[in-house]
Amino acid sequence: MNPYLCAMNFKNDLLLRAAKGEDIERYPVWLMRQAGRILPEYREIRNSLSGFKELVETPELAAEVTIQPVDLLDVDAAIIFSDILVIPEAMGLEYQMIEKKGPHFEKTIKGESDLEKYAQTDFDVEDRLGYVTEAIKITTKELDGRVPLIGFAGAPWTIFCYMVEGSGSKTFSKSRKLLYTNPTLAHELLNRITDVTIRYLKAQIKAGANLVQVFDSWAGILGTEQYQEFGLKYINKIVKSIDSVPVTVFSKGAYGSLPSIASLNCNTIGLDWNMNINHVRDIVGENKTLQGNLDPCALYASHEEIEKMTKNMLNSFKSKRHIVNLGHGVYPDIDPERVKTFIKTVKNYEI
Amino acid sequence: MNPYLCAMNFKNDLLLRAAKGEDIERYPVWLMRQAGRILPEYREIRNSLSGFKELVETPELAAEVTIQPVDLLDVDAAIIFSDILVIPEAMGLEYQMIEKKGPHFEKTIKGESDLEKYAQTDFDVEDRLGYVTEAIKITTKELDGRVPLIGFAGAPWTIFCYMVEGSGSKTFSKSRKLLYTNPTLAHELLNRITDVTIRYLKAQIKAGANLVQVFDSWAGILGTEQYQEFGLKYINKIVKSIDSVPVTVFSKGAYGSLPSIASLNCNTIGLDWNMNINHVRDIVGENKTLQGNLDPCALYASHEEIEKMTKNMLNSFKSKRHIVNLGHGVYPDIDPERVKTFIKTVKNYEI
Repeated sequence: MNPYLCAMNFKNDLLLRAAKGEDIERYPVWLMRQAGRILPEYREIRNSLSGFKELVETPELAAEVTIQPVDLLDVDAAIIFSDILVIPEAMGLEYQMIEKKGPHFEKTIKGESDLEKYAQTDFDVEDRLGYVTEAIKITTKELDGRVPLIGFAGAPWTIFCYMVEGSGSKTFSKSRKLLYTNPTLAHELLNRITDVTIRYLKAQIKAGANLVQVFDSWAGILGTEQYQEFGLKYINKIVKSIDSVPVTVFSKGAYGSLPSIASLNCNTIGLDWNMNINHVRDIVGENKTLQGNLDPCALYASHEEIEKMTKNMLNSFKSKRHIVNLGHGVYPDIDPERVKTFIKTVKNYEI
Repeated sequence: MNPYLCAMNFKNDLLLRAAKGEDIERYPVWLMRQAGRILPEYREIRNSLSGFKELVETPELAAEVTIQPVDLLDVDAAIIFSDILVIPEAMGLEYQMIEKKGPHFEKTIKGESDLEKYAQTDFDVEDRLGYVTEAIKITTKELDGRVPLIGFAGAPWTIFCYMVEGSGSKTFSKSRKLLYTNPTLAHELLNRITDVTIRYLKAQIKAGANLVQVFDSWAGILGTEQYQEFGLKYINKIVKSIDSVPVTVFSKGAYGSLPSIASLNCNTIGLDWNMNINHVRDIVGENKTLQGNLDPCALYASHEEIEKMTKNMLNSFKSKRHIVNLGHGVYPDIDPERVKTFIKTVKNYEI
C-alpha cells in the first residue's frame, strides 16, 4: 500500500473519490499537459535550461513545474512532470527531444538481436528512473495533501511504436508492419515494456503517486482485433498488477475498442474530444468513471463561449462518475486566463 | 447524364453494379493509391519529370499512370491520377509538394480579407483544371470500357484544413481553432470550396468519370457535432448535386459519425482499416455498399498470410454490397507481387 495515501488526509480528494465512484460534492477538474508551455512561469524555468530533458531529469525543477498549475490554475490534481519516453531510454534506447519536431531515437528495434541492448529489463527502476520517483517525493511533500498527485506511463503499444519507428509518424507503418511480419518479436518487446512499466508505476506509487494514468496515444491506429492482441492485453496486465491506487486508461482514438476497454479492471476511462460522452456511457455502463473531454481547441473561443461549452458538457453528464478534463493535452498557445474560465465553470457548477 | 456511361458497354462493370446494389458474380477490387509509387513503371515516369505536380498537370502522363494498375495489377477500376489539392490551387492558393514532407502552401486563409484572392470561386473549372478533365478524357478513351474510371475530390473539410493550416498536421489545431473563433468565416470558406468542388466533380463526370469518390482524410479530428456542422453538411450538398453516377464517401477516422454518414444520399461508404465491418453494417444497414478495408500493413505479410487475411475479410461480408479495397492508400514500399496476391484472392473468391 502507498503509505502516503493511507497516512494523508487530503484537503481536496475529489479526484480520488470520483475515480472510485464515491460521492462527490462537485466534479473534479484537471488538464492533460497542465504543467507546461501555457504557463509563463513554466517557460521561464524551461528557458533557463539546456532543453526539455534537463527539466524532466532534475527532480526539484520537475516538482516545481508540477505544482505550478495547482498554485496558478487551481486544478484539483497535480500530474508529475515527465515524459512517457523515459521508459525506452531506461531500457537502452536514448532519445532526443527536438524543438518543434518531437522525439527522435537514433537506434530502433529492428530484430531479435536488438532486444538485449535496446530493450533491457534486467535493471533496477530506481537506478535508472530515480529522477522521476525523487520528483514525486519532493512534489508530494510540497503539495502537503492539497490535491492528489497523478503518476503516469505510456501504454506498451505506444512505447512500442516509438521504439520501432524511432520518431512520431502519421501512420506508424513500420511499427504496424512488425505485427504482421514478426508477431513473436512484437509480443516479446511488448512483454518487456509491460514488465518495466509495471515496476515503474509501482515505484511511482511507492514514492507518493495517488492515482496512475496509462496513456495509449496511438491506440487509434489499430483495428479492434489487433488492439486487443497487441494493446489491451498488455494494458490489462498493468491494470491487474496495481491495486493500491485508482487507475485511468486513456486510449486515444480507440472508438471501436470501447466495449473491450470497458471490461478492463480500471477505475476510469479517458475520452478524447471526438468521443460522444453519452454514446460512450451507453457502451461502458455505470461502473466506470469517465474522464474528459472538451475539445482543446474550444479554449481558443471567448470566455463566454468557453463557459457555455463547458456547461453544455457538464449538463450532458448523467451521473457523478466523471472527472473533467480536455479530450487531449492543452495546446501550448492557449491563454491561461481561458483555462481558468474552464476550471472556474466546472468548480461553480452544482451537481 | 454522362454520355460515356450511357454509350459504353463495359467489359467489366462490377464496381458500378456493386455500388448501386445490383447483382454481382464476384466482389470488385481496387486499391487507393494503386496508381503510384508501388509500381516501378510509375517510378520510371515520375523520375523523368521535375516533380509530382508535373505528372498531375500533364494529361497524357497522368492517363498513362492511371491505366498502369489496370494493365499490371488487374484491378476492377481505374482512379484518375491527381491530387485533392488541385482545388485550393485553382482557388488561388498555390502549393508545393515537398519530397518526403508533403504539401506546403506559402499563403493560408487567416481572415475574411484573404477570401477574395485565395478562395476564388468566380472562374471556369475547365480553364484552371482542364488538365484533369483532359486526363480523364484520354484515360476513358484508352481504357475503352475495360473497367470504370473513378473521379475524385477532397471533402470540403479536408480542403479547408490545408487552406487554413498550410501543410499537414497531427492536430490541425489552426483549422479547428477557426471553427471556434470565427465560424462565420469557416462556413463561408467551406461554402466556397463546396461550390467549386461540385463544379469540378461535374466536369470530371462530363469528361468520362463513371463514379466519384469524396475523400475526407481529416474527418477523424472532429467530434460528431462539429463534423455534422462543418463536414457532413457540405458533403451532403455535394452528394445531392450529383445524380448521374454513383458516389462514394470516405470519411477516414469518423467512427462516431457513422450513423450520420449512413444517412447521406451516397451509394458507397469507404471504411478505414480500424472500422469493424460488421459493426459498421449494423449501424449503416443494408442500403449502402461498404468499401474497404484490409489494413494496408497486412500487405507486408507473407503471400499465405495475405491470402488468409483477405479470405477472413471476405468471409465476414454478409451481403453482396461490398467493394474490396484497403482501409487506406497502399504504402509506397509494398511489394506489387503481394498486391497481386490480394487482388487474386478477391477475384478467386466465390460469393
